[in-house]
Amino acid sequence: MSVTVVGSIAYDAVQTPHGGRDRMLGGAAVHFALAASFFDEVRVVGPVGDDFGPDEYAVLHGRGVNTEDIEHVEGGKTFFWSGVYGDNMNSRETLETDLNVFETFDPKLSDGSREADVLFLANILPALQLNVRRQCENARYVALDSMDLWINIARDPLVAAISEVDCVILNDSEVELFTGEREVVAGARKIMEHGPSAMVVKLGKYGAALITADDSFWIPAFPVDFVADPTGAGDTFAGGFVGAIAAHDGEITPDVLRLAMAYGTALASFNVEEFGTERVARLTGEEIVERVEQLREITSFETSAVALR
Amino acid sequence: MSVTVVGSIAYDAVQTPHGGRDRMLGGAAVHFALAASFFDEVRVVGPVGDDFGPDEYAVLHGRGVNTEDIEHVEGGKTFFWSGVYGDNMNSRETLETDLNVFETFDPKLSDGSREADVLFLANILPALQLNVRRQCENARYVALDSMDLWINIARDPLVAAISEVDCVILNDSEVELFTGEREVVAGARKIMEHGPSAMVVKLGKYGAALITADDSFWIPAFPVDFVADPTGAGDTFAGGFVGAIAAHDGEITPDVLRLAMAYGTALASFNVEEFGTERVARLTGEEIVERVEQLREITSFETSAVALR
Repeated sequence: MSVTVVGSIAYDAVQTPHGGRDRMLGGAAVHFALAASFFDEVRVVGPVGDDFGPDEYAVLHGRGVNTEDIEHVEGGKTFFWSGVYGDNMNSRETLETDLNVFETFDPKLSDGSREADVLFLANILPALQLNVRRQCENARYVALDSMDLWINIARDPLVAAISEVDCVILNDSEVELFTGEREVVAGARKIMEHGPSAMVVKLGKYGAALITADDSFWIPAFPVDFVADPTGAGDTFAGGFVGAIAAHDGEITPDVLRLAMAYGTALASFNVEEFGTERVARLTGEEIVERVEQLREITSFETSAVALR
Repeated sequence: MSVTVVGSIAYDAVQTPHGGRDRMLGGAAVHFALAASFFDEVRVVGPVGDDFGPDEYAVLHGRGVNTEDIEHVEGGKTFFWSGVYGDNMNSRETLETDLNVFETFDPKLSDGSREADVLFLANILPALQLNVRRQCENARYVALDSMDLWINIARDPLVAAISEVDCVILNDSEVELFTGEREVVAGARKIMEHGPSAMVVKLGKYGAALITADDSFWIPAFPVDFVADPTGAGDTFAGGFVGAIAAHDGEITPDVLRLAMAYGTALASFNVEEFGTERVARLTGEEIVERVEQLREITSFETSAVALR
């Protein structure tokens, strides 16, 4: 049993109010894989160029990630993104996006990746997401991430992809852009009309919501002392969330999804404490379990009788 | 035993994406009082002009609010505010603020109001907040709200007032403005160094956080189907929060404060469903209790063993 993720492998340059990095390992598939690696074997499908070297592979192998389906494009350069975060850390400006080898990416899955038990379609062209989804016929749970760009310019292919997955993960502004609905639950339900049985709405630094057919669940971001760099938080969340689902053998009940939300939240909170993959790369299972327990503690309250007038 | 609130009584004009009102009952003290009225006797201290009539008193009396300390200023006009909400409802622009009788407001407390068991200092000039706080010598719990204006132009009097209360209620941008701290917990702790044992940080449509000496608690906004008008949500939250504390006879433990956060959240969620005071004015205790229980349901998760790698 394993988790397959298809998406970007990148070098990122970021500036935040707390400093920056000129060139660090990043990309949706990388952040997802490192987080999900705590729960199951993870296979990464994505392209890299000649500049992608042993140091980067070492980070992935350090967490036991299977890199056989990382496609080395001869003469190519790895996807590069650079951005700068505003003072409040919830908004960022992209300075540069060099797609490089990602521009002509056509996912090629080995038999091992196609046999995935659980599949995560990170944010790539919706037509490619659908293509990959159909290759993984036996996946018992499939989640999909997307972005405003595809909602704006590739809405029909995106709807087609969404209609064949179990769970869609978007942030609240993307849900509103997609559906025109201002309220999270109403927007999520509109997207779920296309097929998915669940939707995760990311609320940036405020947390995330899980919407299912007749239920919703809300969890705050874990309040870390210091946010160094939010880059990859969403994909790290997805890795914890999807990973926890993959680690569960039985039926995917709302309780399983809720606990998965807590794992995603915990993983994301570690990710933002340092730049890029630095913190998650040296994370331990004990730290994750402790943070999930802390999340339960800081969100619990007991209802007791109050005499109302 | 009773709750005293000092603050504005107003007419509001609002426009939201869902419509508007030209002139509706509002003001911090009014929203607070209606919410807190479910928990205890509430006395409102604040000024009104000749234009404040029987219809407005009827709304307050309909919830059993004591209006003896509402000061009628002969020849004066009631405080008037008008604003328009942006598309995302989390930002608003003030079009007009006519302080009118509020400009020269000097709170005069009757013996009954001075004997308050619990006191809420709504957002007014910090020097007046301190003055009122010192008149209520026997109050066992005092909470204070403020705003960016006073943080900018009356910081020292605000610190003086804060140093004599138990709980400060601000929104996250105000905490950052006050302390320079980007993270909610760090900012709240800095404010608590002035004396308060607790701080509530409102996160707008995302919920609220409670920070105590060695603990934090996070609760999402209740996901209503439809937000008609957020005006007064913060003060309605405060009314539910402070009211629930007032309804508790024993020691104010973190558990009591957490449950109070849930009541505040529930009350605020009703407030935004319709314009001004319309929804809370006809609310029932049963509806509140049901929503608090729903809040517990949509935030609970059980941690169970997941084998991590």
